Amino acid sequence: MTDVHVVRFLPSGERVRIPAGMELAEAAARAGLPLESPCGGRGRCGGCRVIVVAGDAPVTPADRERLSPADLARGVRLGCRLRVPGDLDVFLPSEPGAPIEKPDGEPAARGSRLPAVRCRTIVLPRATLADQVTEAERLEAALGSPIRATPEALRALGGVREAHEISLVIETEDGELVTAAESGSAPRRAAAAFDIGTTTVSASIIDLDGGEILAAGAALNRQVRFGADVISRITRTIEDPAALASLRAAAIETMAELARRLAADCGVPLDGIVAASITGNPSMTHLALGVPPRGLGLSPYVGVFRGPLTVKASALGLPVCSNANVFVFPSIASHVGGDMVADLLASRALADARPRAIIDLGTNAEIVAGDRSRALACSTAAGPAFEGATIRMGMRAAEGAIHRVDLNGDDLRIGVIGGGEARGICGTGLIDATAALLDAGVIDETGRLLPPEDLDGVPAGLRTRVERTAVGLAVRLSDGPDPVRLYAVDVRELQLVKGSIAAGLGTLLAALGIGEEDLAEILLAGAFGSFVRPASARRIGLVPAGVSVRPIGNAACTGARLAAIDVEARREAVRLSRFVGYVELASRPEYPRRLADAMGFPERGAPVAER
Amino acid sequence: MTDVHVVRFLPSGERVRIPAGMELAEAAARAGLPLESPCGGRGRCGGCRVIVVAGDAPVTPADRERLSPADLARGVRLGCRLRVPGDLDVFLPSEPGAPIEKPDGEPAARGSRLPAVRCRTIVLPRATLADQVTEAERLEAALGSPIRATPEALRALGGVREAHEISLVIETEDGELVTAAESGSAPRRAAAAFDIGTTTVSASIIDLDGGEILAAGAALNRQVRFGADVISRITRTIEDPAALASLRAAAIETMAELARRLAADCGVPLDGIVAASITGNPSMTHLALGVPPRGLGLSPYVGVFRGPLTVKASALGLPVCSNANVFVFPSIASHVGGDMVADLLASRALADARPRAIIDLGTNAEIVAGDRSRALACSTAAGPAFEGATIRMGMRAAEGAIHRVDLNGDDLRIGVIGGGEARGICGTGLIDATAALLDAGVIDETGRLLPPEDLDGVPAGLRTRVERTAVGLAVRLSDGPDPVRLYAVDVRELQLVKGSIAAGLGTLLAALGIGEEDLAEILLAGAFGSFVRPASARRIGLVPAGVSVRPIGNAACTGARLAAIDVEARREAVRLSRFVGYVELASRPEYPRRLADAMGFPERGAPVAER
Repeated sequence: MTDVHVVRFLPSGERVRIPAGMELAEAAARAGLPLESPCGGRGRCGGCRVIVVAGDAPVTPADRERLSPADLARGVRLGCRLRVPGDLDVFLPSEPGAPIEKPDGEPAARGSRLPAVRCRTIVLPRATLADQVTEAERLEAALGSPIRATPEALRALGGVREAHEISLVIETEDGELVTAAESGSAPRRAAAAFDIGTTTVSASIIDLDGGEILAAGAALNRQVRFGADVISRITRTIEDPAALASLRAAAIETMAELARRLAADCGVPLDGIVAASITGNPSMTHLALGVPPRGLGLSPYVGVFRGPLTVKASALGLPVCSNANVFVFPSIASHVGGDMVADLLASRALADARPRAIIDLGTNAEIVAGDRSRALACSTAAGPAFEGATIRMGMRAAEGAIHRVDLNGDDLRIGVIGGGEARGICGTGLIDATAALLDAGVIDETGRLLPPEDLDGVPAGLRTRVERTAVGLAVRLSDGPDPVRLYAVDVRELQLVKGSIAAGLGTLLAALGIGEEDLAEILLAGAFGSFVRPASARRIGLVPAGVSVRPIGNAACTGARLAAIDVEARREAVRLSRFVGYVELASRPEYPRRLADAMGFPERGAPVAER
Repeated sequence: MTDVHVVRFLPSGERVRIPAGMELAEAAARAGLPLESPCGGRGRCGGCRVIVVAGDAPVTPADRERLSPADLARGVRLGCRLRVPGDLDVFLPSEPGAPIEKPDGEPAARGSRLPAVRCRTIVLPRATLADQVTEAERLEAALGSPIRATPEALRALGGVREAHEISLVIETEDGELVTAAESGSAPRRAAAAFDIGTTTVSASIIDLDGGEILAAGAALNRQVRFGADVISRITRTIEDPAALASLRAAAIETMAELARRLAADCGVPLDGIVAASITGNPSMTHLALGVPPRGLGLSPYVGVFRGPLTVKASALGLPVCSNANVFVFPSIASHVGGDMVADLLASRALADARPRAIIDLGTNAEIVAGDRSRALACSTAAGPAFEGATIRMGMRAAEGAIHRVDLNGDDLRIGVIGGGEARGICGTGLIDATAALLDAGVIDETGRLLPPEDLDGVPAGLRTRVERTAVGLAVRLSDGPDPVRLYAVDVRELQLVKGSIAAGLGTLLAALGIGEEDLAEILLAGAFGSFVRPASARRIGLVPAGVSVRPIGNAACTGARLAAIDVEARREAVRLSRFVGYVELASRPEYPRRLADAMGFPERGAPVAER
């Protein structure tokens, strides 16, 4: 008798039971999720790459041949060659050829098309008395092309010995010599990508050629001690002239600390990081560059610049190769930043004729809708509700946070990050809980949390969770001595946030002259967006009910990685930042009515998919 | 009866006696030195500008109209309007339209042709909700052209208020925004020029438009504590890896200190210095940029780079506007540096069809000969003899130095800087003393200092000065308890130095296929060269006897000033650095014989002009 294994496919959550030893590609086909396999399943094209996120999957010879050690280490396999050895959770790339996104925010980058920098190895011929040519000029002769050089680069060049093999790093676009070292003592070289979020700074160190992730991680933005949200930080810079320098230093220190940690993780020395990119919302890029963000905080909300910029690492204060050029993403508008540009770059949301929408749920919500011929963006005052700041027992998605809530028979079932005692509720928990309580009839379509006496049709287990407290009605989500509660006012807060996002999207679609039904899909980006369950998002009306929703993970990080190593990606980022138009919701007369309409919840019984 | 005044014209030294009240232009014509006066003497063209270096010359209304306050203060007058009020020493520009050079090394710059930076004043229109355009983009719209901006510039831009008049500094060539400030708080703006000599660093602060000198000065290069000459400093960097950073810091500190002092002198705040240039020999530019100069000290004597470079002031460490671009002069060859390029730029020595030679007598002697169609350069190991280092009682041209020596009846007459007790002898004193002693027959044509018993034809007063000392024969130049002496070995040292310069020039002329007689003139550049008396230089054979010699002052400073404010001057500097070929004397088989031939002194009775 043959063993039976269960394979769960993410992000959709489809499960199939298959006999042991079946190929994963076959299992996926049974789940209705056929893998792309242009080479016909011969392990040659890599089109069927998947990420095994739970369970053990042996590495096949074809994997070894086609995949990098770093990819292998993070669970990437060729689906066509993998014989399922046991229960597995497998993450599937959603578009053929698209970057592979893992829900934990570690996507791979596409292979580089026009590398930002090239490493070259040459032997510098000796000068002679008869031919007294400087090192820089002999280098140009050896390369057959002129080079640009800063004093930094000349210092490095001056440190190599003639007639020894030297390893150069040269900017592809303008021939700038970034650094030089004798091959024997040249550090391993890589690129770094940073996504400066208001709350979290993500970074990765990647291979210069293929964009392999060598190390990735995130850290709390040290600016949070100056204020949880963007506006409070901007206000600080207005009230206190010294605050700008402190905020800048905090951002740079966060990046520097991450760079040091990740460099140590992957064994790339800091001075081996010879190219980099930075993305983030406009306030974050202003602050990281030390540019006053005042205008972003006051009507009419305009920044000093949109970018792009290219800045020396030394001028930024990053502890990498001081002569490395750092590409700072351009913004679309004053509150639709380089992070959204990076999302668009990574997701290719505007790459074809089918309209799509993309919502980056960070501390602010940035929304873009459109297709390859036209696109519009807006930013909504979503506020930090999803990060817990405006929710009574809200908290970040950290240990102790309720992040999942489901109806389970006549009661709720909660998921707590880390598995221990619940300490609070994070954004996904807030959305899940509200969706479940809407389904159960504890919250009505207007957003009112019903008092116990009005909960006749609600199962008893659930009904006893509704309590009157000193600050109004609440639902007790966890038990024990310090229960976590969802308060009626929290639901109102969520309504405001989800309503403003839905109204923003509606405004964009109306301006584009298309309807929700025209959207091929809605992409949810951002560290938070990637954990939102699409069905819950639909249930509360955060996104329209009839549209396919796909979390794409921290796509801004992927975009930053692409631009860190690829000139074409940088050019595409610039093009996108100019291509996408901007709609200021505050200046649209119909927006208040749209917002009021969007604050209600969809009626019970509307179609809800698995969540 | 009319008073009679004496006017002495420098640098030639011609004197005329004229009736009081005669116009200076007339006096110059009588002296055979007609002033250029394209406007016909109406005080309109400024072509007849002279510098009154001794005596009082009233400022005329025409002077006030045509000349800047700084020029007036340093004695510049329009020669066609000046009625001679008393005895005067007047310095004449030697070429029509050429920069006016004062022998004390404070030449004026030519008016700028294509300004390196432009100051513009605009009012930035307010942004509105209906037109949310960033400040940088509104600035571009207001200027009608794209701007480039570093984070520094964006910081400055972010500090100005909308709808206020702002004062911008923009690089002319590439539209880079250097800085911005509200007009009310904008600093007075200027440029700085630096000439980094091995011994002395000269600097000036100049007006951005006309190149007026607002302040000028010099300081001892703080690198001297690492060694008096270039080679000893290079050696330090080879022996001690930390020395390069120390040498760099010493050069930058010297420049920074000068900049602070001069800025205070003229009331321009340091952050108002928005453009700059640096010239110097290749070793100095390597060290100032922190680029290893190792190759310059070892055969085959090649540096890391020739330049030009443009570097941010902040990257250099200069305490001026941190976003100012600093133009670093290109070199001609590894030991013929940006200082010679600046000499050529300022003197226009290669501007026409008449061949000229130019000798920059710094710590090293750099020589260029040629005309507008062809030119060659060489560098001679002149060594620091002229700065006193290899002369037994040598010293720099500072207080207490014997700087002039003449035959006076049957004895010598010496001039001591500061007028007090003589403490040593500087380069001009060395040349003068040798010339005088050759004339008197105390030194013979082979360079031998004759013993007292062989001095029969020499006047007694002079003969008693020749003494036998523990280190050989010497001539006592000054009296008193601690007499200053010129030793026989010093004359040998001078022979080597002047011989190598003469042999270098001879080698260049031979390579060009021309003779000494084809030279229109020989220009002596450098702080030292400007004080050498042409007749003494001819007498000792430093320059050929039959050629006109003209000291042009510290022309490298003038060239640096031109390039600090003028893009055309920078382009011309680059062109000159590529145009002039290089001859390595050490690789020329005929050089040793030429040197041996050139070490002797010209015979007595050769024609000697006034000195």
